[in-house]
Amino acid sequence: MAEETTIILYLYKRLHQLGIRSVHGLPGDYNLVALDALPEAGLQWVGNCNELNAGYAADGYARIKGISALITTFGVGELSALAAVAGSYSEHVPVVHIVGVPSTIAQKQGALLHHTLGNGDFSVFANMSRNISEVLINITDPSIAAREIDRALTACFVAARPVYIGLPTDMVLRKIPENGLEKPLNLALHPNDPETEADAIQAITDIIYAANNAVILVDACAIRHPVIDEVNELIDKTQLPTFVTPMSKGAVDETHPRFGGVYVGDVSRPDVKAVIEAADLVLSIGALKSDFNSGGFTYRTTTKHTIELHSDHTKVGFAMYPHIGMKSVLQKLLDTLDLHKIRHTESAKSIPPTLVNKEAPESTGDVITHSWFWPHIGNWLQEGDVVITETGTANFGILETRFPKGVTAISQVLWGSIGYSVGACQGAALAVKETNPSRRVILFVGDGSFQLTFQEISTMIRHNLTPIIVLINNDGYTIERMIHGAEAGYNDIQAWRHTNVLQTLGAREGQYRNYVVKTRKEVDELFRKGNEFSSANVIQLVELFMPKMDAPRALKITGKMSEKLNAKMEV
Amino acid sequence: MAEETTIILYLYKRLHQLGIRSVHGLPGDYNLVALDALPEAGLQWVGNCNELNAGYAADGYARIKGISALITTFGVGELSALAAVAGSYSEHVPVVHIVGVPSTIAQKQGALLHHTLGNGDFSVFANMSRNISEVLINITDPSIAAREIDRALTACFVAARPVYIGLPTDMVLRKIPENGLEKPLNLALHPNDPETEADAIQAITDIIYAANNAVILVDACAIRHPVIDEVNELIDKTQLPTFVTPMSKGAVDETHPRFGGVYVGDVSRPDVKAVIEAADLVLSIGALKSDFNSGGFTYRTTTKHTIELHSDHTKVGFAMYPHIGMKSVLQKLLDTLDLHKIRHTESAKSIPPTLVNKEAPESTGDVITHSWFWPHIGNWLQEGDVVITETGTANFGILETRFPKGVTAISQVLWGSIGYSVGACQGAALAVKETNPSRRVILFVGDGSFQLTFQEISTMIRHNLTPIIVLINNDGYTIERMIHGAEAGYNDIQAWRHTNVLQTLGAREGQYRNYVVKTRKEVDELFRKGNEFSSANVIQLVELFMPKMDAPRALKITGKMSEKLNAKMEV
Repeated sequence: MAEETTIILYLYKRLHQLGIRSVHGLPGDYNLVALDALPEAGLQWVGNCNELNAGYAADGYARIKGISALITTFGVGELSALAAVAGSYSEHVPVVHIVGVPSTIAQKQGALLHHTLGNGDFSVFANMSRNISEVLINITDPSIAAREIDRALTACFVAARPVYIGLPTDMVLRKIPENGLEKPLNLALHPNDPETEADAIQAITDIIYAANNAVILVDACAIRHPVIDEVNELIDKTQLPTFVTPMSKGAVDETHPRFGGVYVGDVSRPDVKAVIEAADLVLSIGALKSDFNSGGFTYRTTTKHTIELHSDHTKVGFAMYPHIGMKSVLQKLLDTLDLHKIRHTESAKSIPPTLVNKEAPESTGDVITHSWFWPHIGNWLQEGDVVITETGTANFGILETRFPKGVTAISQVLWGSIGYSVGACQGAALAVKETNPSRRVILFVGDGSFQLTFQEISTMIRHNLTPIIVLINNDGYTIERMIHGAEAGYNDIQAWRHTNVLQTLGAREGQYRNYVVKTRKEVDELFRKGNEFSSANVIQLVELFMPKMDAPRALKITGKMSEKLNAKMEV
Repeated sequence: MAEETTIILYLYKRLHQLGIRSVHGLPGDYNLVALDALPEAGLQWVGNCNELNAGYAADGYARIKGISALITTFGVGELSALAAVAGSYSEHVPVVHIVGVPSTIAQKQGALLHHTLGNGDFSVFANMSRNISEVLINITDPSIAAREIDRALTACFVAARPVYIGLPTDMVLRKIPENGLEKPLNLALHPNDPETEADAIQAITDIIYAANNAVILVDACAIRHPVIDEVNELIDKTQLPTFVTPMSKGAVDETHPRFGGVYVGDVSRPDVKAVIEAADLVLSIGALKSDFNSGGFTYRTTTKHTIELHSDHTKVGFAMYPHIGMKSVLQKLLDTLDLHKIRHTESAKSIPPTLVNKEAPESTGDVITHSWFWPHIGNWLQEGDVVITETGTANFGILETRFPKGVTAISQVLWGSIGYSVGACQGAALAVKETNPSRRVILFVGDGSFQLTFQEISTMIRHNLTPIIVLINNDGYTIERMIHGAEAGYNDIQAWRHTNVLQTLGAREGQYRNYVVKTRKEVDELFRKGNEFSSANVIQLVELFMPKMDAPRALKITGKMSEKLNAKMEV
């Protein structure tokens, strides 16, 4: 007779096979028995402070490790996490959301349980997750549980989007055969149709050879549906000028001689904009043209002169090739492109001298301004750093920072939920600890966003994580001020004593350090390579003061664009 | 020509007419222009730390003032509040959820905006609110905007449940006639059909006169669909022994000689249980028989000997009277009952001596135990206090506390979302400040739940609110330990320095006080009538230590019932 396991162990062992070692979430009475089984599967329980933060943390963990898991309880717990899971859906991040739900018996009876709406309807909450889940399953039949779990996990990984697994309390310990676990999940992408793909590659090759000054534009989905290795090889081989977008910062080696900077339509630095828009071919990889990622929809490139490679289709000029995914296309291009046939005119060769990490010319005085800070901080970053930026000044400022090689950037340019970065920092720092503890994790977050989720620093302390938290104190929601209500009271916040935070959340003497930085000189003194701060093995918080009404150049322009778009009425 | 106003001012002035003076929520770029108009309508902006907390706060505010409003931004903001709004739906609390959404033009274009899923679908988030909203409207046509707003607000008030108002940025300042505001909203309940009602009242009267020892059992909906005045008059007139449930604690005067205690089925104190279950008639008002409110469904009363009055129907024994609401029925009963015909036998006259606020007999020693603390603290409470208890030991412990007259109790026995109480405390304290600042607001919250939402204390400080926060430090999630995993790591939490919290969140010298209480003697010294602590006009936090594995009697029993129910498998 075949060996048996429980449904929960089957699920956990699959998560382990996928590389997950820690599971985020909160206990609740409908998931407690499920939590018992974590250690047996080699999984660590994180135990977050609340479910929204746990969701953000799971997202951050997945961005480092490729996938993550989140466990919440029915109703109260799962709904608290929805904004985070929706963010993972929006931003293409694979998170397995496991929800402990009441027993199938209680559900059938329509029992008036706590954590329900009191109307006997047990489907409401799962339905709320339906449109933010690639696959949604409710485990109610042990005989198909393994197949359902495999289907959900495969979809999560391949589509790079969250899935929802509802797990009733009476299903957790039900026995199922163990042998399914011997066969790894099939995570291969759906293969492209060979004939269609060959035609697309021919068209792409022709148009590349015909171009005089082509450029490569790498975007978000090149990271999320990972083709980063292929892209970097393509840059090396073709030597085409390469640009990224806000969402793909860090995707390519920014020290590469052919790296040209960040393209954001009209929000780009003028020299970057000039090169891209003078190009006679844009090879776009994994584009995600959302408002903040495209300078408010101000790309001045043309469809006719663009090749678009996506995870699920390919476009060459106006011609569409459905279901032709980019990974295989890029691999075949790398094999077949005749590099001698690629022409580099003078214009495309001249990489704009942006992002060279030197002070902006307008920067004088002692006050820490965004135009001074962000290029400057690039000199302090080091290879392999994980840099997390909050939706706020930091997300726009980081566009002015040239990264060393191998930096991973984490942010939410599309979903843009403030508070995300603190939770994500916990998840990313834990993932780094599990994979390569020598990497530093550096968070840039504003004082407004910080207030939404800052208790997750407690979880960092609890797990001995050692990120550097740079808290930009600029007296409220500066990103909102740039959009509307510059001096309005609703953009103000309560002033906190930030240097008390680590101690309040339980950091013990010797386990943490605080810094306050108010001048450029102090920035230079603290952010210095090789000093204790830069290589500490304790959690550190830097309160860095910036003027309330100062903002990165890109945010100033984007803010005004947003205000205009919001106010526009039909006439 | 008629005077004009804007859609947003129309909405805000309606809120003001309903008694709302402060609006909870967070700014976001899709609601900023709407926030500009608050002061003109006489409304204060609260400015919470995050949306979940804002939703809890709005719930707390509504429980004091009758209704409240919450403003969030599209996607990221509204979803973060969903667990709170679902709680208000579950617990019958009227909250107007106003969501600033992208302009109708952007929606029509399916623009790839930030805060979206990136798929051009602008309906997903509103749909997630559909089943937790009594009415859901999206304002897209100024010509019907006033009518739609009136419909939503009326439904919110009358049904005592949340409504959702989606407000696109380009609709906020559109002009509509102002004259609708002159006519107040019609908030009258739907009238009962006179003939059906008369028949029901006859049946009720007959059964009351026939009974020898009837009791009154008041439950949650007597508070939420308010018939409290009628109920208290009924107790006075009939002199029938009266009991409450966990969800209706505080609904009736607990110093009344005919008040008998809290009925929770098999979880009740034996003397309470004996009286109720020996009664030959239970007049049940506003029942809501959820698991934690009914001792895990262990009522030993019979349908045949129960009259059930509800907001939308009446039951007399097995006979159902649909659409016969309790307010009118109670008013007619008060007018027509012949009090001389009500019989009181000896058994029903003997009110059980529960809840007399004296030490439980088993209580000895110096350690603060639940069985000692909760009856004890009742002696310190004063008339008019607002007592907020968290889903945890506090929610069960408070059943052992006899309240002075006029105490309002706030908790979530049905929804049971941990962390709720801290947000609710902010909203309740603000509502008290607006209506009767002499009332004290006292929060009892455990250290586990505290971690989910504690930053909302910052909002209390910002608005000079002065609650007494009793933080029960018992080293983790004791309520979960009572259900499952008593010693499991997942029920542990990171230890915080609680006495640092007020200062960290910005309370200034002289604006706050901290206390640490570890023994019964220290409880008695601090919780003393008339001392500075008891009547301070600053925010105060008491860290009160209790043993990790101690719990109120009712929680110990309920926890074991829950574990059994969760584990039960079909055979």
